[in-house]
Parts: sequence; structure tokens; C-alpha cells
Amino acid sequence: MTQVHYDKIALIGIGLIGSSLARMIRKAGLAGSITIASRSGHTLAAAKALDLGDHYTTDNAEAVRDADLVIVSVPVGASGQVAEDIAAALKPGSTVTDVGSTKASVIRQMQPHMPSHVQFIPGHPIAGTEQSGPEAGFAELFAGRWCILTPLPDADPDAVARLTRFWEACGSRVDQMDPEHHDMVLAIVSHLPHIIAYNIVGTADDLEMVTESEVIKYSASGFRDFTRLAASDPTMWRDVCLHNKDAILEMLARFSEDLASLQRMIRWGDGDKLFELFTRTRHVRRSIIEAGQDVAVPNFGRNVQAPTDSAKPD
Amino acid sequence: MTQVHYDKIALIGIGLIGSSLARMIRKAGLAGSITIASRSGHTLAAAKALDLGDHYTTDNAEAVRDADLVIVSVPVGASGQVAEDIAAALKPGSTVTDVGSTKASVIRQMQPHMPSHVQFIPGHPIAGTEQSGPEAGFAELFAGRWCILTPLPDADPDAVARLTRFWEACGSRVDQMDPEHHDMVLAIVSHLPHIIAYNIVGTADDLEMVTESEVIKYSASGFRDFTRLAASDPTMWRDVCLHNKDAILEMLARFSEDLASLQRMIRWGDGDKLFELFTRTRHVRRSIIEAGQDVAVPNFGRNVQAPTDSAKPD
Ligand SMILES: NC(=O)c1ccc[n+]([C@@H]2O[C@H](COP(=O)([O-])OP(=O)(O)OC[C@H]3O[C@@H](n4cnc5c(N)ncnc54)[C@H](OP(=O)(O)O)[C@@H]3O)[C@@H](O)[C@H]2O)c1
Ligand SMILES: NC(=O)c1ccc[n+]([C@@H]2O[C@H](COP(=O)([O-])OP(=O)(O)OC[C@H]3O[C@@H](n4cnc5c(N)ncnc54)[C@H](OP(=O)(O)O)[C@@H]3O)[C@@H](O)[C@H]2O)c1
Repeated sequence: MTQVHYDKIALIGIGLIGSSLARMIRKAGLAGSITIASRSGHTLAAAKALDLGDHYTTDNAEAVRDADLVIVSVPVGASGQVAEDIAAALKPGSTVTDVGSTKASVIRQMQPHMPSHVQFIPGHPIAGTEQSGPEAGFAELFAGRWCILTPLPDADPDAVARLTRFWEACGSRVDQMDPEHHDMVLAIVSHLPHIIAYNIVGTADDLEMVTESEVIKYSASGFRDFTRLAASDPTMWRDVCLHNKDAILEMLARFSEDLASLQRMIRWGDGDKLFELFTRTRHVRRSIIEAGQDVAVPNFGRNVQAPTDSAKPD
Repeated sequence: MTQVHYDKIALIGIGLIGSSLARMIRKAGLAGSITIASRSGHTLAAAKALDLGDHYTTDNAEAVRDADLVIVSVPVGASGQVAEDIAAALKPGSTVTDVGSTKASVIRQMQPHMPSHVQFIPGHPIAGTEQSGPEAGFAELFAGRWCILTPLPDADPDAVARLTRFWEACGSRVDQMDPEHHDMVLAIVSHLPHIIAYNIVGTADDLEMVTESEVIKYSASGFRDFTRLAASDPTMWRDVCLHNKDAILEMLARFSEDLASLQRMIRWGDGDKLFELFTRTRHVRRSIIEAGQDVAVPNFGRNVQAPTDSAKPD
């Protein structure tokens, strides 16, 4: 069903998330026109070459003039600067949202700049890949994934409902929660997994008794899975670590406590406790597959075409 | 090229690995006949229903009688018992190998039982999935993956060369190293990743401030990747932890040390050091993809069919 949700949409930041939004807005006809802003002429030119929008500028204020919806898709550490850039140019009655992976910090950075005639409704689509930049986006990124909105207490319910319908039109299901809870949930489901993945790849990279060539050759036995998350954008993840510090430190403390206990089971050869833990964790994957959040096929259905490999798993 | 490598092959254990071997041996015609042994009548019946071999028995000694090659594919903690079972029935001049994920312990368990008229050549295919049992196997599991042999100092070079050709005919590339080095390499590329994955899923499962339903709904943001490894067979992984203790504890110590340092960067907001680490780890994934050990497509190429998802990434 094609339906214009906002007459003019401005996208500030046109990387993986911004460009996926641009493609989906086009595909579903969710806007009358799309204006795209990026910090660098280089990224902007790439967006233009991909024909992602109708107007292009490196001037954030110019981009938001007359926009009915502004979506800020930049690393969370840049949110404050963007809010400052656009504040004076925002159209009365327009909605400003974002897609940043942390919410309390984004609100602290952006809210003070927002004029009272604008609805500021923070958001976060729980969808992504390990790649970045405008080439990496695709319209279906949000399909079947959740989008979390963290409206402020005084948010206009109509503006929130309209933004909710927009995300639903992008294929998402929409939840609401308060920003602090969002940051706690994301610390365990996203931030800790990325930090752990970066850490284990770093540990392997530093070993002197196992060569890098060995790590790479034998990585199909488990390690390769972690390298995907650890290949994510360093700027984005630096900013997440800096802007969700408390929740991340809390989760890291719990993780390390549990790891110390697991290490003890291994040291003392406590097979029963190891078996108990390794059994308890299996149901989580089943639930994730049942919830439509991952595929059931083994190895994520990867079919690596290696030099001697001409066959597919049946 | 179809070529009989061994006249009679006996497979002791017919789970993921044993049944993948059975399928590949059949497919490539690598044996005159296949005899299958499993501990339980239940698993044996499943193997028979799948038509994986020519003869079936729950008696390990009976299975190896007249076999030219015996492949032991049971949890590493059961290796000693299997070696004891089969020792007296082994045919002079035959080769005994295994596929266990740890090598020094398997050698300690099996070697004392091996008669001098038999070649015992330990091995480990670096290939697998998170599933187990005879239904989970497939002939192409070993294609393009490495198989590590850890022959003992007095091994007969001809027997080793013959076993090498067998694994190559299964689609693998074959490496040799000493058992202690194998255990160190696998501790970082396989055992640590699985232990960390089990641990993080356990931590998430225990949280009181984030519900299980939230963890599952939002798992596509990173967490779901870890649940795959953490869904692996508990018996196999208990045994790996008990039988490669020293190398695993060494890797755990290094991982925890590095994590403490990363935690410190987060606590003190050291953005430069975070950026440096998150940049350094990216090249590892590129190398793995170039080596044909993983796919280049984002998100491992997963295309989850969620309720509202009818489209595919382009
Ligand atoms: N990647 C994911 O999986 C994912 C998932 C959900 C949410 N998010 C969140 O979405 C946001 C964007 O992520 P992304 O993956 O789309 O990033 P990306 O592909 O790296 O694109 C980043 C965009 O932000 C711009 N930008 C970078 N630094 C900036 C700065 N200091 N000031 C102004 N603009 C700046 C870039 O402009 P130039 O290229 O022109 O410099 C580019 O247009 C982040 O807040 C991230 O936390 C990401
Ligand atoms: N899974 C992987 O990804 C992978 C990769 C490389 C190497 N390996 C190694 O391959 C070996 C087999 O793993 P798998 O994944 O094939 O396991 P699996 O699918 O669980 O099958 C295990 C087989 O061993 C038998 N078995 C289990 N416990 C036994 C015991 N105590 N005594 C005698 N037989 C027993 C089972 O018999 P019943 O069912 O009849 O009880 C079954 O036939 C393990 O040593 C593992 O470390 C696994």
C-alpha cells in the first residue's frame, strides 16, 4: 500500500541506516520528497550517484528547512552538534527523530537544542549489518525487525502515532520504552556482544604462540562468527561505548563474574555444572528462531565457496 | 574421481561427524563397505533408517573386526572406553583414527590400548555445525575445510599419507602438527569462542532487569550470533572443557586480561584507544573471507522470514 506519510523528509546522515531509510521511503512512497545531508562531499556524492533522494546538501540547516520529518542517522557522539546545526531552521510542527544506538545520551545532547514548536521523538531501529556507508544500505533492512521509540513524557501522542505508522510502513514492528530501560536492554543484546567480539578478536590477534595464519585457516570452528561483529564501524562503536557507559559497565561486570565462575568449573573439572550451563542456554536459540529473529538452518545457512568446494549442503 | 581408499571402514559413533563421513564415503565411493556402531539402539536405528552404511551394531569390537580403517567419532571423554572396547578386535595393519576436538587427551586415553600391529593416527576435521545426531550430517561438511592430523613420532608415513588422501577425497585440506600445538590453536579458534558464547547467553538469561522476551525480540542487534554457538551439544562441550583444560585456562586468562583493559578504556572514556582496538580487529574478517573460510555477504547472508517480511536484501 503506497501512502505518503510526510510531505518532505530530511535525512541527516546517509550511511547504512540513512540510506536504507532513503531506499525504503522511495520504494514504499512514504514521502513527497527526500532531502539528504551528509557531512562530507564524498558520501553525499555517493548518495547522489545511487539516486537515493531528491535534494542533496552538506548543510544540515538547509536540509531541514520545510521538512515535516527529520531523521538523524549519525554516530551518537555527533547528535549534539547536529541538533545545534538544525535547531533554528526546523519547521514549526515538524517531527525530529533519530536512529542512534543509545538513547539517554542522545536525548541529553539533542533535547536542549530543540525548539518547543517541534516534536522530538527519539528512536532506534534494531536492525543492521556489519557494513557501513550509503552503498551498504537496502530497503528491506527493517523488515520484520523491531524499532524502539523512547518518547519524552510530554510527547504529542499524535506525532508518536504518526512516526509509529511510518516505521510500520518500513516493515518494522514498533515498541515504546523509557530511554534508560532501552540503554540497559541494548547493553546486553547488542553492546556487550560487540565488545566481547572485538575483545576476543583482539586477544587472538595478539597471541605469540598461535600464528594469525592458523587463526584464519581454522576459524570455521567458531572464531569466524565473532569476526563479523568485530568488523563493524569503529566510530559508531567507540561512540556507543562512550555514550552508554554505565549500562555497559554493569553488563560487563555481570559477564565477568559469570565467566570467573565458569573458569572455576573448568579448573576444578566440574562436569555436571558445565553440562547444566551448556544445556540451559540452548532454549534461547530456539526462542529466537521461533520469534522470527534468526534462521533455523545450521551455520546460519552459510555456504562458503572454498577452492575445493563445489557442493552445497543438502 | 571415485576411488576405494579402504576396503572396509568402521565408524564408531554416528552423530554429526560420523554420519557426515558415512555420507561422503558413500558419495565418493571411498570404501568397499561401511560398518556403523553407536552406543544406543536408538541412534543406530536412525542411522539405518537413513541408510548410512552396510552393517550396523552396538558392539564396538564387532564393528572393527576386519576393518582397514576405524574412525572414532564420539565425545572426547568416551575415547578411552572405545579404545579399550576395540583393542583386541583390531585387524593387524589397520589404521585407527578419530575426529575429537582435543588431541593430547585423546592420545593419552587411546594410545595405551592400541596394539603395536595397528597404526593410530589422531585427527580433527575443522568443520561442524551447532547440530548433532545422524540426521544433522551432510556429505559436504568437510568441503573446503581443514583437517588436522597429529601423528605420533613413530607413525608409519605410508599410513599417514593414505589417511591424508582419504580426507582430501572428502574435500578437506590436510595439515599436520603436534597434539599440544593443536590444543593451543583450537583453544583460541574454537573452545574460547564457544565458552564465551555459552557465558554471555547465560548472563543474559540470568538478568532480572531485562526480560527474556526483550532479549529475544531485540537479539538481531548482535546477541543472536552467540546463541548459535551456545546451542551446541552440551556433552561434546563439557568433554572439550574437561579435556583441554590447560590451554583453555590460558586463553581465558588472556581474554579476561584484555577485557579488563577494554573495560578500563570504557570507564575512563578513552575514545582514542577504543577506536584503535575497533580498527585493528577489522582486517581479521577480511583475511578469513579471502581464505574462503566465511562468506562476504552482510549478516552471513541470513534472510530471516519474519511475519511481516516478504522481501529479500538485494
Ligand atoms: N550500523 C548498524 O548496524 C546500526 C543499527 C542501528 C542503529 N545504528 C545507529 O545509526 C547511526 C548511523 O549508523 P550507520 O551504520 O548508518 O553509520 P555509517 O554508515 O557510518 O554512516 C554515518 C553517517 O553519519 C555521518 N557522520 C559521521 N560522523 C559524523 C559527524 N561527526 N557529524 C556529522 N555527521 C557524521 C556520515 O557522514 P560522512 O560519511 O559524510 O562523514 C554518514 O552520513 C548511528 O548512531 C548508529 O549507532 C546503527
Ligand atoms: N560437532 C562439531 O561441530 C564437531 C566438529 C569437529 C569435531 N567434533 C568432534 O567429533 C566428535 C563427535 O561429535 P558429533 O558432533 O558428531 O557428536 P554427536 O552428533 O553428538 O554424536 C555422538 C556419537 O557418539 C556416541 N556417543 C556419545 N556418548 C558416547 C559414549 N559415552 N560412549 C560411546 N559412544 C558415545 C553417540 O552415540 P549414541 O547417540 O548412540 O549415544 C553418537 O553416535 C566429538 O569428539 C567432537 O568433539 C565435533
